[in-house]
Amino acid sequence: MRVLALLDGTLADPESPVVRVDDLGLLRGDGVFETVLVVDGRPRELAAHLDRLVASAAMLELPAPDRAAFDRAVGAVLDAWAGGRELVMRLVHTRGVEGGDGTPTGFVLGSEINPATLRHRADGIAAVTLERGFDEGLARRAPWLLLGAKSLSYAVNMAALREAERRGAADVLFTTSDGLVLEGPTSTVIAASDGILRTTPTALGILPGTTQAALFRAAERAGWVTKVESLRVADLRAADGVFLASSIRRITRVHTLDGEPLTDSAALHAELTALYESEY
Amino acid sequence: MRVLALLDGTLADPESPVVRVDDLGLLRGDGVFETVLVVDGRPRELAAHLDRLVASAAMLELPAPDRAAFDRAVGAVLDAWAGGRELVMRLVHTRGVEGGDGTPTGFVLGSEINPATLRHRADGIAAVTLERGFDEGLARRAPWLLLGAKSLSYAVNMAALREAERRGAADVLFTTSDGLVLEGPTSTVIAASDGILRTTPTALGILPGTTQAALFRAAERAGWVTKVESLRVADLRAADGVFLASSIRRITRVHTLDGEPLTDSAALHAELTALYESEY
Repeated sequence: MRVLALLDGTLADPESPVVRVDDLGLLRGDGVFETVLVVDGRPRELAAHLDRLVASAAMLELPAPDRAAFDRAVGAVLDAWAGGRELVMRLVHTRGVEGGDGTPTGFVLGSEINPATLRHRADGIAAVTLERGFDEGLARRAPWLLLGAKSLSYAVNMAALREAERRGAADVLFTTSDGLVLEGPTSTVIAASDGILRTTPTALGILPGTTQAALFRAAERAGWVTKVESLRVADLRAADGVFLASSIRRITRVHTLDGEPLTDSAALHAELTALYESEY
Repeated sequence: MRVLALLDGTLADPESPVVRVDDLGLLRGDGVFETVLVVDGRPRELAAHLDRLVASAAMLELPAPDRAAFDRAVGAVLDAWAGGRELVMRLVHTRGVEGGDGTPTGFVLGSEINPATLRHRADGIAAVTLERGFDEGLARRAPWLLLGAKSLSYAVNMAALREAERRGAADVLFTTSDGLVLEGPTSTVIAASDGILRTTPTALGILPGTTQAALFRAAERAGWVTKVESLRVADLRAADGVFLASSIRRITRVHTLDGEPLTDSAALHAELTALYESEY
């Protein structure tokens, strides 16, 4: 099942065309998006997702997304949803049509969650490290490269996932050319060791993770120490557990990295998942 | 004026929606494109553009574009065109809708040429160098980064052009982190000196230029030596002329680089433009 809402709050048929061919979101990947999990009718971290949508739009110098309009469209999707308990909502905001009056294009699309995603959540995944092709100072030096913006220009992220599949894995941990861990194509990396949760700094040019932030809040309340600091692949191998956090897959454990098994983190995964769930 | 043709050869209204919101070309920038110049009803380098569309699609592991269908759609646009002598044709090929049967989305959109483009052609431009954020070996090491594919994920190219504008320039020459000249966001770099035309190697992770190739063919016939080799910014400063070659702007001279005037290449520009035009 799919439900599509436009920013005026009206519903549209997701199987009918809604977008013009000259929309710059299509012709140039010139737009931004967010992916939000909904459970039992309640969107998780919606405010944080809208904050990030606004921040990404600013990096692309797009008109600011209309938060009230996105809220309205989210409400329209939720009201019309008649599918399962959980759904994924995509919020999309583009530069609008080429040569137009500058009105952005926006919509919210609700869909069922992919069965593979549910399997990964439960069973964990094998991942591979792939070079992302930039050094740790680049994001600061070259803002025009849009590192850390969640733009519609995601072809590289999709290609990296295909490369992972070719290598017998389900996901990717991007690394810098100088060997630091960055993020997954659609997730934040978390390493757990001795009561400490670590994630990588957004200053490297990666997205601030909404799911990682929720987990860290809950973990801090439960007595975990949380740190944002650079990680190397060796740090992941030495950790008690390595996890990819993302809205739809929540906290997914990485059981195998570059073909080598990591420390069994099944119990730790259950503990962290319970902490994350305690936020809702 | 705009004319839109679908791959079955039928025309559609470019001002009406044609694309679904769940098209992966839109949601993920997951598609490829080409931009073709048409003069007096004749597309320039159409076969070379289709070759490059096919090559880009292979890099993204997309279904191969249907050349006959694109030829048909190009023909339909040309038949229906009632605008000026010149037009720009965009050929677009995406992965199709999410969770669909794998049928790609494709269309050809004909439009008038932007007046700024015509001005740049005639007057030349100021350009700035901007770091592209990768080293010269990356394209070979990391094919998942899709360097050298003309994908719909062009948000960075657009952001770089905005950065150029902020610096008082109209275009960009991307450089590697080790100081080699790459390409423009939508063009190929050419330097001319002492009867030699030079352009940068595609092995660096850049697009093969269709307009540059046409110019080099014509120049070789006229006795120029042509070379494909790495260039540094200092080589551009020392050249008799620096040009950006692209389908719609043809051969555009760069008169100013990073705020400093380059050698006056107006006469050389006229000579090279005449050579390029002799191909048609």
